This record gives sequence, C-alpha cells and structure tokens, in this order.
Amino acid sequence: MTTEQLVAEIRQKKSFLCIGLDVDLNKIPKHLLALEDPIFEFNKAIIDATHHLCVAYKPNTAFYEAYGIKGWKSLEKTIQYINENHPNIFTIADAKRGDIGNTSTMYAKAFFEDLSFDSVTVAPYMGKDSVEPFLAFEDKHTILLALTSNAGAFDFQTQKVDEKEVYKHVLNTSKTWKNAHNLMYVVGATKAEYLKDIREIIPESFLLVPGVGAQGGNLQEVCKYGMNSSVGLLINSSRGIIYAGNDENFAKEAAKKAEELQSQMSIIL
Amino acid sequence: MTTEQLVAEIRQKKSFLCIGLDVDLNKIPKHLLALEDPIFEFNKAIIDATHHLCVAYKPNTAFYEAYGIKGWKSLEKTIQYINENHPNIFTIADAKRGDIGNTSTMYAKAFFEDLSFDSVTVAPYMGKDSVEPFLAFEDKHTILLALTSNAGAFDFQTQKVDEKEVYKHVLNTSKTWKNAHNLMYVVGATKAEYLKDIREIIPESFLLVPGVGAQGGNLQEVCKYGMNSSVGLLINSSRGIIYAGNDENFAKEAAKKAEELQSQMSIIL
Repeated sequence: MTTEQLVAEIRQKKSFLCIGLDVDLNKIPKHLLALEDPIFEFNKAIIDATHHLCVAYKPNTAFYEAYGIKGWKSLEKTIQYINENHPNIFTIADAKRGDIGNTSTMYAKAFFEDLSFDSVTVAPYMGKDSVEPFLAFEDKHTILLALTSNAGAFDFQTQKVDEKEVYKHVLNTSKTWKNAHNLMYVVGATKAEYLKDIREIIPESFLLVPGVGAQGGNLQEVCKYGMNSSVGLLINSSRGIIYAGNDENFAKEAAKKAEELQSQMSIIL
Repeated sequence: MTTEQLVAEIRQKKSFLCIGLDVDLNKIPKHLLALEDPIFEFNKAIIDATHHLCVAYKPNTAFYEAYGIKGWKSLEKTIQYINENHPNIFTIADAKRGDIGNTSTMYAKAFFEDLSFDSVTVAPYMGKDSVEPFLAFEDKHTILLALTSNAGAFDFQTQKVDEKEVYKHVLNTSKTWKNAHNLMYVVGATKAEYLKDIREIIPESFLLVPGVGAQGGNLQEVCKYGMNSSVGLLINSSRGIIYAGNDENFAKEAAKKAEELQSQMSIIL
C-alpha cells in the first residue's frame, strides 16, 4: 500500500486509529476457547466489528509465536482475512526485528512476501545495514523504533550523544539511508512532549504512536505536537479496545471503545 | 542448562564452537529439495556430523520465518532433535527480540517454554523493562546485543554518551538489572580489539562471538582479549561451516571445517 492510499483511507473514514491485535488466550472470553482456533475467531470478531472505525490493524507477533505453529497459523489466517475482506486497511506486523543484512532480508520476506503485511516494525540498534534490506521493498513500510512508550526508553534512547539524544541520532541518521521514503517511526504517546522536536527532524513521516489508553498517553496532546498536513499519525490502542468486554458481547464492547476514539479523531480532523 | 554445565561441556569437548543453523533453501545441496522437509533434513545431517565438535547450535529464526508455518515446523523439529539426541548441547534462538514488558514475556515463553531453547538473543534498545522478562526464567540465558559484527554497529552502538560508547552503557546498565546473572552478550569478532575494554566491564559473562570466518574475524585475537578463567566464549560460525560443501558430501565437508576450528580451540584451551 502506498502512503497516499493510507492518507486517503484516513480522510474517508475520519480516523487514524490502529487497533493492536495482541491476543492472549488468558484474556479472551471463555466461550471462544472451545473453538478450533480461538485466537483467529477472536480477531475475526474484532475485525468484523471495528473495520469501519480504524485504518490499520497491528498484530504483535509475540502473542502468536508464544503458541508455536498453532499461533503462527492464527497470525497467517488473521492477515489473510484482513487482506481479503478489507484490502484498504493498512497492516502492521509488530515484530521489532533487525539483524545483519542477509538475515534482515529473510525477515523482510517473511513479513512482506510470505505474510503480505504492508509494514513491519524494526529495531535500529544494529544500524544502517540491518534496516536497508527492509527499505528495499517498494510500497512496503519499515516502522523504525525511535522513542518507545515504555519506561526502559530512558535507559538508552534518551541518553545524550554530542548534546543530542540517541533517538534523535536514529531519526537523523535514518533519513540518509537508501529508500528512506519507506520509513515510518514508532514514537510513544506517553512521551507526547517530545513530538515537537521529533517533527522538526522528520516533518513528513508517518508516526505509529502506541501508548494511548492503557499506557496513559493523551490523544489531544499527541495530535497537537505530532500531526502534519497529511495527518502523519497512526494512533494505536490494543488492550483498551480488544479487552473492553469479556463475554459474548466482547466485539460490540470493542467497537464502542473504538468508536469513542474515532469520534474524537473525526473532531480533530 | 546452567552456565556450569556449559563450561563442563566446553572442557570435555575441548571446544567452544557454536554452529549457526542459518538455512537458506537457495544454498543447500539440490538433492535435499526433493525431501519433505529439506531444512530439517539439512540440519539433521549437519548435527549428526558435527555434534562431537561443537557445544552449541544457533538457528537464526529469520531463516525459518521466511518460509512461514513450514519454516516454523522445521525450527521446531530441529530444536527437538537437538534436545532429544544431544541434551548437553547449548541451544540459542538467534531471534533478536525485545518489546515492552508483557510482550517480552510472550517472546520468552515462545523460545524458553514452547520451543525449549536454552537461550535467546535480545536487542537492548527498549531498555530494562524489555529485557528483564527474559531474565526471569531461571537456567535460561538472555544474550544481549552489545557490539554487533556488522558495519551498522558504528551507526549507534559506538556513539559516545558522556565519553562512553552506547554499547558500554548497555553493558554497564544491564549489570544492574534483576537476574543479571542470566545475561550473556553478543560481541562481534570483527571488533576483537574492543574485547579488552568489554572484559573490564563484564569479566565473568559469557560472550557469543559471531563473525569468525565468513565475516573476517580472527579466532586468536578474540581469545587473546576475550577469554576468561571459565573460557567465557562461544565462537559462532554459520556459513563457513554449513555451506562448506554443496553436494552429497556436504555434512562431511561441514564436519571438516568444524574440526579445523575445534582443533585450533583445543590448542588454545
């Protein structure tokens, strides 16, 4: 999917909501556990109930890998279901991969070709030759971790190198990489005040912003400092939406939560 | 596996060789492609031919994920085969994972519980709360990326924060984390001269050293600066061993290359 197609979808739906599909068997409604593939059935119900309210879905691969081959099958069925039924929805494999060159190419093939995701999240620690193999895929997007939403972000990301924080070096340096136009960035909503500085370095890029809701980030603040003329934001909510309910009505409850966020977004747009 | 068991295996085999199982269908002998699971058959033959020469096997997950569910099955069969037939061999899931707390726990479950690996490689960019969930598993080892073997290591890892490089901050900070005794570190052989400084910060820890062979690192140099009284080194070679031959004799050729390295190691020990 091109960035222009993503922006068009945002304008049409008046939403820049991304729903995180982080499915934990211990947290989903009990009645689903009797089905053959509870994780996929949960996702399918959430997707059916929310696809008109969001522009992106983001399965976090950890929650699928934890169940081995069965989990990987649920992930495959989920991405196929989205691509077949809602081809205009942007898909993110939240995998936080990154390795030396030839190995990153294998990860890129796994997510862009084998699973047909539109994008994948990538960790920057190993530098240029670990990220450029992902960027080589045209109309696929590499979402680089810049400033994450967790407390550990202050361990290394905000340390200062030559008066500038490590995450700013990541932003600046990544702009020089080949096919940098395929980059987006992860910036946590819990650090909204940093967005002003970040927008000075990467005014045009899309930002994937986790941490609104369960982690305490504030939507208005993120938009105030992070929005650009093409919107430039995908706001993710996972637990706050998908676990809103815990009985037969869970999908309806999820849709209600998604609608709350979408209606706030439509006012801002 | 405990560190003591690993050290005992090293002493007994006079080897601290780790063999990387980075299996690319385009590179394995053509006659294997007719079999039902060529990746597993390749690994099985390599393991059968080399298990007496090495103390660790390290499948890089990218090479399995690239083939989707089929690849994940090959990975599962490979780790089961090692654990059943060679329980004294240390196993490393080279996965370079890392995410916010609850998500890292899911990754830890995937590799430590579902697949029964002894260890997993983890990226440090997201800090303490992204790594500690892995460290919580007793007798399992978390191998943190410190200074990697690729050119991109110079993009961020060697940048200086308060006169000290980022990777040294990673080493120092990680020592303060809960269950830090379960940490090992990745240090590339292509940067052997850095090992002296690194050993001042983490004298006791095991180092996983990739980059000997195909990437140009030198075994003697690595041992000179990196070895400690418990050996403290796992030297990895992947392509240099597993692709030594390309016909029916590939496993024998691989064993020959592994034996060359092991005999150099036995002299050093």
